[in-house]
Amino acid sequence: MRVGVVGYGTIGKRVADAVLRTSDMQLTGVAKTSPDYEAAIAMRRGIPLYAVPGREEAFRSSGIEVRGTISDLVSKSDVVIDATPDGVGEENKGKYYVGRRAVFQGGEEAYVAEVSFNALANYDEAKGKSYVRVVSCNTTALSRLISALASSGHSIRKVRAFLVRRGADPREHKKGPINDVVPNPVTIPSHHGPDVRTVIPVDIVTVAVAVPVTVMHLHMVNVEFEDRPSRDSIIEALASTPRISILYSKMGFNSLAQVIEYARDLGRERGDFMENAVFGDSISIQGNEVYLMQGVHQESIVVPENIDAVRAMMGTPKWESIMATDKALGLYSSDKRYG
Amino acid sequence: MRVGVVGYGTIGKRVADAVLRTSDMQLTGVAKTSPDYEAAIAMRRGIPLYAVPGREEAFRSSGIEVRGTISDLVSKSDVVIDATPDGVGEENKGKYYVGRRAVFQGGEEAYVAEVSFNALANYDEAKGKSYVRVVSCNTTALSRLISALASSGHSIRKVRAFLVRRGADPREHKKGPINDVVPNPVTIPSHHGPDVRTVIPVDIVTVAVAVPVTVMHLHMVNVEFEDRPSRDSIIEALASTPRISILYSKMGFNSLAQVIEYARDLGRERGDFMENAVFGDSISIQGNEVYLMQGVHQESIVVPENIDAVRAMMGTPKWESIMATDKALGLYSSDKRYG
Repeated sequence: MRVGVVGYGTIGKRVADAVLRTSDMQLTGVAKTSPDYEAAIAMRRGIPLYAVPGREEAFRSSGIEVRGTISDLVSKSDVVIDATPDGVGEENKGKYYVGRRAVFQGGEEAYVAEVSFNALANYDEAKGKSYVRVVSCNTTALSRLISALASSGHSIRKVRAFLVRRGADPREHKKGPINDVVPNPVTIPSHHGPDVRTVIPVDIVTVAVAVPVTVMHLHMVNVEFEDRPSRDSIIEALASTPRISILYSKMGFNSLAQVIEYARDLGRERGDFMENAVFGDSISIQGNEVYLMQGVHQESIVVPENIDAVRAMMGTPKWESIMATDKALGLYSSDKRYG
Repeated sequence: MRVGVVGYGTIGKRVADAVLRTSDMQLTGVAKTSPDYEAAIAMRRGIPLYAVPGREEAFRSSGIEVRGTISDLVSKSDVVIDATPDGVGEENKGKYYVGRRAVFQGGEEAYVAEVSFNALANYDEAKGKSYVRVVSCNTTALSRLISALASSGHSIRKVRAFLVRRGADPREHKKGPINDVVPNPVTIPSHHGPDVRTVIPVDIVTVAVAVPVTVMHLHMVNVEFEDRPSRDSIIEALASTPRISILYSKMGFNSLAQVIEYARDLGRERGDFMENAVFGDSISIQGNEVYLMQGVHQESIVVPENIDAVRAMMGTPKWESIMATDKALGLYSSDKRYG
């Protein structure tokens, strides 16, 4: 499968690298607006660069070779993964992707695609589709978690999730907050609950605040079941689900920063942690309800889902794709040995 | 009533100032360990200073006059408010308060006092007691909120509260976290839920994290009722409860920092905000459940409760005390005019 990546920022560069690691995919190139340090790195790594139309000369005058514009990249690709900023994907769809296949990110409105996508939740719904939207980082993490818990043998009645959002990504030097906690949004529910419902039919309410942190999001999650689950059944359901890692305090996992330090020590590229980082100590049963906390690495968690979205559109079976992606990216389901 | 304050830090200095503002109380003095800038301010303001035994000379050599030690202060007081660090109050009880009346803070274990106290929740239980414990800042805010919601005409079935705790107070220059979100504790429930039950018999689970913020705590609260309440009934219940302020985004209230800016502009001493700061826009009804967010000013929210605890012990009727305290401190129940 020939895959092009349009937009080479936080998500795009990670998705492009993931495509390069994936043996059944070929990276046809990446398209960018600015000839900045990220473009220079792509050139140095031999990734074919394409420019937004009208920007070719800016690249050339910066000494960065471009092979053409977005249209050229699209014509060379079976599927384009659009990782441009919120709303640009929709514009690009009309300009460049008519009659082609494209994967969009969660920052786009759901109507931009034929189906919203999470690999664990609704992989098969993307089969044969031309336009698929991978839901955003928080929604991806919630969708994985809910999919895992739904496999516990207990029926989910309701989900309440309380999101402590990182205020900015590490590269965003102008964003806040500083020394503040910001209801984000101040209204309830936040968009995340409705967004989860685009991939899983579940009763869910989400509440979100933003804090002065760049490292990860943290979710405090309450899941009400129809009956009382055992803690073992919950841990087993999570531990046997790909892309969910259970991390215990006895191994030193007490905060988000430690999860990222772990990723760095593992040699993960850019210090990314693409799994849900569930704090094992937090998994608690109260009557029919489960409470837990999980970390969500906003920069990288959707990368595996982008790869799977391409395969789902092209007809690869679900578990074949998930296993291939996780193997290529060096992910594993859970650190059972730490339990 | 003659009131002495032992411990003159974050809480103690505020409580002492509150006693000074209260016409039916006389501040007999404050006791301190160190002759630091806070001691110098107390001396300049004419507040009688007492030292921890053995520390008198340290004060005198710093040019700060002391009238005696803690025992002298206790003997001059009808009630002592102990605002020392966690655990010191218990030690002080055995050393100095035997046969006297003392108010402890929420950092002490519940068994240190005969009753844990929140003015709205269980004022009358402190009547005639010798040892009363004012519950901590987060517990005070939850207790007020639950007391208010219990007056809505709808029965509360269950409370789930998700606490985003400030990492440190403004003066604590050595505490973290920095760029991290820390499950605090990593286990569920946090101590706050059980602590609420020391003053209100309610089914409650709390989950808490700490973030790099000094400004205020923020609570995301879910309250399940036996039937479906109207939003108006909830707002009316909150608006008619003292020490709860409802703040709307149309008046510029979108974050905790803005609440403190408001307190500063109001001329509140030290920029304190002693009310629960409920974000009006967040009040949401989902089935039988209410969701909302509130800010909690950790440095000052327990001050009115300390004053009320003294009066409760001495036999003043509940609403007489609450109204007198709120008038003396310039509090009001809610900014209905901003609704």
